[in-house]
Amino acid sequence: MNKEALKRRVRKIGRHLRNDAIDCLVVVKPANVTYSTGFLGDDSWALIAKGRVYLVTDSRYTEQAQKECPACKIIDRAGPMAEAIAKIIKKFKSVQTVAVEKSTSVAEFERLKKAMKSRLRTVADIIENVRGVKDSGEISAIKTAASIATRALSKTLPCIKPGITESELAGFLDLQIKKLGAKNSFETIVAFGPNASRPHHQPSKRKLKKKDTILIDFGARYNGYCSDITRCFTVGGATNFYKKVFEVVEQAQATAIKVVKDGADMIEVDTAARKVIAESGLPVYGHGSGHGIGLEIHENPFLKPEAKGHLSAGQILTIEPGVYIPGKLGVRIEDDCLVTKTGCKIITRNCPHLPYQIC
Amino acid sequence: MNKEALKRRVRKIGRHLRNDAIDCLVVVKPANVTYSTGFLGDDSWALIAKGRVYLVTDSRYTEQAQKECPACKIIDRAGPMAEAIAKIIKKFKSVQTVAVEKSTSVAEFERLKKAMKSRLRTVADIIENVRGVKDSGEISAIKTAASIATRALSKTLPCIKPGITESELAGFLDLQIKKLGAKNSFETIVAFGPNASRPHHQPSKRKLKKKDTILIDFGARYNGYCSDITRCFTVGGATNFYKKVFEVVEQAQATAIKVVKDGADMIEVDTAARKVIAESGLPVYGHGSGHGIGLEIHENPFLKPEAKGHLSAGQILTIEPGVYIPGKLGVRIEDDCLVTKTGCKIITRNCPHLPYQIC
Repeated sequence: MNKEALKRRVRKIGRHLRNDAIDCLVVVKPANVTYSTGFLGDDSWALIAKGRVYLVTDSRYTEQAQKECPACKIIDRAGPMAEAIAKIIKKFKSVQTVAVEKSTSVAEFERLKKAMKSRLRTVADIIENVRGVKDSGEISAIKTAASIATRALSKTLPCIKPGITESELAGFLDLQIKKLGAKNSFETIVAFGPNASRPHHQPSKRKLKKKDTILIDFGARYNGYCSDITRCFTVGGATNFYKKVFEVVEQAQATAIKVVKDGADMIEVDTAARKVIAESGLPVYGHGSGHGIGLEIHENPFLKPEAKGHLSAGQILTIEPGVYIPGKLGVRIEDDCLVTKTGCKIITRNCPHLPYQIC
Repeated sequence: MNKEALKRRVRKIGRHLRNDAIDCLVVVKPANVTYSTGFLGDDSWALIAKGRVYLVTDSRYTEQAQKECPACKIIDRAGPMAEAIAKIIKKFKSVQTVAVEKSTSVAEFERLKKAMKSRLRTVADIIENVRGVKDSGEISAIKTAASIATRALSKTLPCIKPGITESELAGFLDLQIKKLGAKNSFETIVAFGPNASRPHHQPSKRKLKKKDTILIDFGARYNGYCSDITRCFTVGGATNFYKKVFEVVEQAQATAIKVVKDGADMIEVDTAARKVIAESGLPVYGHGSGHGIGLEIHENPFLKPEAKGHLSAGQILTIEPGVYIPGKLGVRIEDDCLVTKTGCKIITRNCPHLPYQIC
């Protein structure tokens, strides 16, 4: 990670801490630890105080941390995390208010409180909100993640033949992602035929038939940053009903994307997609219309009927309406969009998008 | 999942709840939700009260839950989780003490407390402790997971040639696991040469050289249950030093495995492995000597210097000593053992184990 970019992030976080009268923040959420330190490993916390950042890790990760974290002090703890954190805080003389992220477990909170023997607040969404708008390094990483996902799917499509199982197809796509130097953003979903009616279907031994439909929801994670794409294909020709559903979902997505821009009301984006589907007479999906992507696969902003607030330039979010008819079909189309002052840029536009027929 | 097996689990959990004077337990940890309901999806909680189990999920998972959870009532929530849980509890007349697992986040605990408007305790390790000793269905699933991992590695070894990257090798192994109808238990670790000195190295673009060493730490997850195996290989012949290290680690593992049996002191197992390495003059590893496996990749019991208690027949745990010399090498050997009355059964014994040279 670039040292200057990390310092800029910590300055931004520091401003929020001062506004909330917090002298020291204990960062426990892995994505927030990565954001404030650059560290990509696990089981580590960060501590932000007086413009300085400490990464508290253990011997498994010290070598990695030295490479990844040019702007912070690395603490190699031997004992429990809570005690290591308390020990650092004790050294600060003027720290009065310590806060820990609310995503910490009750068990960890209790341990920390006991170890610190001082007042401990909990806070939510400080770093999450800073992370909403991406900096140039983040935009570049997400674009690379989108490009790798796109290339991986392009390499996978020629291998799709009747007889392949959902699991095999998922495994083959995952292999392409790894060959391209990335990881999965999340567990790849491959659903054939009616299996696609479950938005979170897990790939099974179900084989692809000669006349069938395919839904693939996947993403690449590059340098910690996620892309998230859903594509639908058909094998041996689509039914007229499938074609109709596909067109409605495509239209819903396009309509929502037109509303995306700096300052747009989030509810309006969500509503735009749902309205197209409702007006077609098809069932409206139960999930959100989209979500931010970054160090987490689902992060601010969340586009849903109860969403509050407006979009900002520099956010990157998915737009992903769908139609699900249990026992029959599922169609979802998902692209990743960078919000700009005047609209948005679809960074997954080149990802193969065969309207109906794959082979 | 087998309905009777699920009911037996809930009866066991119920006995612990009665001992702790808890009328109703809110289960939030995913592995505990799976254990008490059979449900393999995400974002769902369980509630155990008066011998009955409720799975609180949402529309994305109701179809899946109906298939997987024959012994519990499925609640399809529309609003927030905390409110859905509170609504069920309100219907019980004689429930006085509600407890939630301590692994819940502070944020969720606060929401639950607010929604319930009644006394709420936190508890730790109730279901974790019941899960320690596996039932026959679990042992069978873990054996299948071990067998799939073994077959996947056997299929992968012939593909290892100089030039392959760590990421590609990991991707190829993962594909074999998926072809065999399983998932990864965790993100596969492939480390060439000195990269293996980092126990949690992430596969990189580093290419395999003509004279090189390989460490692979991986596992298959079958029906939710994990296996966990580490193997080391060499390419183009091993140095005498590598051979010596390998033999010491092998000896450390064999020595610890001999101590494993029902009633064995956990510290003694941990110490047995460390002692062999210390006596050889090589550096002693910083991680535990092993851990339980099951619905989680790391679960009770944990073999570490500060471990307390004894092993029990029916537990399944890894034994995994290692030697790590930064910049030079890393060797770890890890097998999965089922604790029995008289010793243990190594369920990963058939996994390819080439002492030195792979090609």
